[in-house]
Amino acid sequence: MKEVSGGVTAARGFLASGVRARIKRRGEDLALIFSDRTATAAGMTTTNRMAAAPVWLVRQTLRLGKAQAIVANSGNANCCTGPLGMTEAQRIRHEVASHLHLSDSAVLVASTGVIGRRLPTRRILSAIPTLVKTLSAHGSDAAAKAILTTDLTSKSVAYAFQAQGRRIHLGGIAKGSGMIDPAMATMLCFLTTDAAVQPAALRKIVRETVETSFNTITVDGQMSTNDTVLVLANGAAGNRPLQPGIPGWNAFVEALRLATQQLARAIVQDGEGASRFLTVQVQGAKTQAEALQAAKAIANAPLVKTMVRGADPNWGRLAATLGATQIPFDPARVQLSLGGVTVFRNGSPVVVDRKTLKTAFSGREVGLRVDLKRGRAQAQVYTCDLTEQYVRINAKYS
Amino acid sequence: MKEVSGGVTAARGFLASGVRARIKRRGEDLALIFSDRTATAAGMTTTNRMAAAPVWLVRQTLRLGKAQAIVANSGNANCCTGPLGMTEAQRIRHEVASHLHLSDSAVLVASTGVIGRRLPTRRILSAIPTLVKTLSAHGSDAAAKAILTTDLTSKSVAYAFQAQGRRIHLGGIAKGSGMIDPAMATMLCFLTTDAAVQPAALRKIVRETVETSFNTITVDGQMSTNDTVLVLANGAAGNRPLQPGIPGWNAFVEALRLATQQLARAIVQDGEGASRFLTVQVQGAKTQAEALQAAKAIANAPLVKTMVRGADPNWGRLAATLGATQIPFDPARVQLSLGGVTVFRNGSPVVVDRKTLKTAFSGREVGLRVDLKRGRAQAQVYTCDLTEQYVRINAKYS
Repeated sequence: MKEVSGGVTAARGFLASGVRARIKRRGEDLALIFSDRTATAAGMTTTNRMAAAPVWLVRQTLRLGKAQAIVANSGNANCCTGPLGMTEAQRIRHEVASHLHLSDSAVLVASTGVIGRRLPTRRILSAIPTLVKTLSAHGSDAAAKAILTTDLTSKSVAYAFQAQGRRIHLGGIAKGSGMIDPAMATMLCFLTTDAAVQPAALRKIVRETVETSFNTITVDGQMSTNDTVLVLANGAAGNRPLQPGIPGWNAFVEALRLATQQLARAIVQDGEGASRFLTVQVQGAKTQAEALQAAKAIANAPLVKTMVRGADPNWGRLAATLGATQIPFDPARVQLSLGGVTVFRNGSPVVVDRKTLKTAFSGREVGLRVDLKRGRAQAQVYTCDLTEQYVRINAKYS
Repeated sequence: MKEVSGGVTAARGFLASGVRARIKRRGEDLALIFSDRTATAAGMTTTNRMAAAPVWLVRQTLRLGKAQAIVANSGNANCCTGPLGMTEAQRIRHEVASHLHLSDSAVLVASTGVIGRRLPTRRILSAIPTLVKTLSAHGSDAAAKAILTTDLTSKSVAYAFQAQGRRIHLGGIAKGSGMIDPAMATMLCFLTTDAAVQPAALRKIVRETVETSFNTITVDGQMSTNDTVLVLANGAAGNRPLQPGIPGWNAFVEALRLATQQLARAIVQDGEGASRFLTVQVQGAKTQAEALQAAKAIANAPLVKTMVRGADPNWGRLAATLGATQIPFDPARVQLSLGGVTVFRNGSPVVVDRKTLKTAFSGREVGLRVDLKRGRAQAQVYTCDLTEQYVRINAKYS
């Protein structure tokens, strides 16, 4: 397993591009990913009931299990836009399909940005010819930039590995950076691979991988209306379709795991206004769901996030947040640690030198650990601090 | 019904005081409320599993249904302090009881402040003689100040009304101002009345009143470990004990409702870093619980709170937050309004002049309204915006 460059164009047969369609005030805002042959498609979308128009279109296409292109815009979510929004998403899809000589259903669409505004469809349509013309095997960075909203950095990753005597690639791009909750917390993530993968196996592994990557991060506990993770597997490597039991499957799963976890961490590190990275680990839970419930509650608690901001090891807030979850733990048994230093055990504070604790909690990456002492299940959630900058960004967004 | 001055000492037979015990870095931090005769006592405490030591003591006393004094400190929550914390709360209670010539069980105790630190009991004990000596019929303000933590203003209220030919008073003091969630969202609130009230009727009406006052406000969705609402009814007015059906009962209920709602609003208005006041109204819900669930989710959403901060009518965030609740509403029927202006209806945005909307959303008090179009139940939640100042206060609290 080797990390390589190229993002979504690391895999053979994939081209990408990113152009400016004047949806956002500045910068590129329209991205295209294209496979030179039909690809097996799998993905996941938000569970938000206010899901955007493109999300509904994506769900239709994913049911077919095949696709050949992804067109995505930033700056406008095309959400809460009614039947008109759906028509406009279809028009964009149709225009891209025509230019690429594909059927409409081979094109996946995604949007991210302000909710409740009509898409500037005319501008998008007139940018599509350039978008298609500039498709390139070096276009991943341009596409990665064009899907950003408040993100400060573009997020890209790619891995290569040998299987069945062939070199296989898997790469991806993603954008954050607010409205991130551990329920498909990604806004947009597009992955491509030149491996041939058995469709049902791909669907299943994508679901499992999202669970351990994008579903373990949170920035602000706000679930988006547009979250979309898509994987295209075009088989250009010429391998026998991967699935459990077939050589190369495990390496493929590992590459998918590494790529998604890396992108998930990058989203948190570039969380709106983030200055520090926090890992919340909950162990000793009765069930995995219980562990995740506690970890999410802590990771989303404003008082925990602000104490991380100030590097203030005020662990009572951890205790209060945990107590509010109503998980029936025993306060006399639960154990709390900050930066590896145990601060609460057997129902009482542990006598710790305040300076030692301050130091343990002062890095750019810090950890909180809770042991519920109820069972053996555990979960980890990654998040960032809540800063003045987060407020500033979001007070004047639209 | 008339608003009067005097706070917790407006009612006959009640004295109060507040002194400095050097628990906080500056200012008064120890308060006492005393009734010259035994009073019927009722109250509610936090449902947080990490409830503080004084909360456990209060629960014991409330079971007896009678008390004569309340001693409360700010600056230290005496929470997560183990058996030692309980011993220290008992010592303070005993010391106050001795000086007032009461049995220990006649004294209610409450604490608020940093969690997980040992109470400076010696300092508190040595301040008690002065605390008792300075008890006065004009001491309400001193007590109200001594229970504050990050609050900027003290919170006090009192009402008077005629019943059974007598003048009856009901007054209270409260403190906020962070860790406020609509689950007994008050930290501390103490109410006194010179009415005689039938014990079971008092218990019941206190529970109902908290539901429509402190349980409808949120600052940061963080449930405290020390929330305590206490009511002492000492009967000094000489009335026949109030209960449903007895003259004066309705006026008493109204006074209690007004006092608690006024204190609840004051807590939100003085929420940590708050610059604007937000009312979230949800109607058309299937059940009251569903309406409250939606209203709380919106009131606690950082993206809603920051858009209030910036007076930015970015109503898509309201839609996204509502969609994330998983309440099975129909996106094509739900209706959203900002500052009285309908912005989303029949699944599509309503065409609204942006300037009109900006103006409607620019006051110091703004409202959001959601109609789920599923039934007839409704709920209201009051909150404040999320500001840079909230982050600053909480980044360096301990």
